[in-house]
Amino acid sequence: MRAEHVNPFVKALVTTFRTMLNCRATRGPLRLKQDIFPPFEISGVVGLSGKAAGTVVVSLSEAVALRATSAMLMMDATEIDSDVIDAVGEITNMVAGSAKAELYEYELSISLPSVITGRGHEVRFPSNVTPLCVPFETDWGALHLEVGLTEVAVSAGA
Amino acid sequence: MRAEHVNPFVKALVTTFRTMLNCRATRGPLRLKQDIFPPFEISGVVGLSGKAAGTVVVSLSEAVALRATSAMLMMDATEIDSDVIDAVGEITNMVAGSAKAELYEYELSISLPSVITGRGHEVRFPSNVTPLCVPFETDWGALHLEVGLTEVAVSAGA
Repeated sequence: MRAEHVNPFVKALVTTFRTMLNCRATRGPLRLKQDIFPPFEISGVVGLSGKAAGTVVVSLSEAVALRATSAMLMMDATEIDSDVIDAVGEITNMVAGSAKAELYEYELSISLPSVITGRGHEVRFPSNVTPLCVPFETDWGALHLEVGLTEVAVSAGA
Repeated sequence: MRAEHVNPFVKALVTTFRTMLNCRATRGPLRLKQDIFPPFEISGVVGLSGKAAGTVVVSLSEAVALRATSAMLMMDATEIDSDVIDAVGEITNMVAGSAKAELYEYELSISLPSVITGRGHEVRFPSNVTPLCVPFETDWGALHLEVGLTEVAVSAGA
């Protein structure tokens, strides 16, 4: 995947956190997946397809997920329940939806979000895809964004 | 999601196991997600989008994943490594790809597969989506298939 393709996702994450959650998110340096084994407990996953196929993953610690849910729903989230699942899915969905508008040349459409829970879970990509990871610091703690995107051969009909 | 929409995925899974892996897979009764908390260690996830948006999840025990990889790659897989990740991703991809052909009215395209590892992980859907689960018995042990699919409002631009 081309490094410049990650930028719309980075911008979308910063904007989503600022406008939806009133939370500042500051990106760190781009990394290859291999460098990171995140201790994060919850990941939102959204698939992208069209003239490119890909996946966006937003991984959060439980603490950040609870704060984000509390801010989004204006309530006090204290455990990983269906509200938190929905909030993490919606954040990931907004990051994907906002980035796809900038990547209009690929005519992307987005799947339902799915949300992975479980300490020690890992989201992995096929070995022929090199996802790019961007760590973020927010007012509430760390999170990271991961994007894998590859162009689809036209004959594949995708 | 409509129950009849799960059938193309069920048929695709049986066919994929038979033709790719030379393994018989027999479906059990349709269940709602809430009934199952799978002890499976590895899940392939593929997003679907188009005139409907959805997600397909194929969850396998480590034992079934190793046997399937060994059959697919004609080698002896003994641990969850990148070969196993690729094989589980490819199986999920084939199930999604084959089902999308039958659901042509939705003009679905499919995302990259992602593969979740980690004992105790759980793949969850937004609360407004009711995924349908189908347990299977195979020559190698149990697995399950989960599908969430909802029609997309045209004005949303998919």
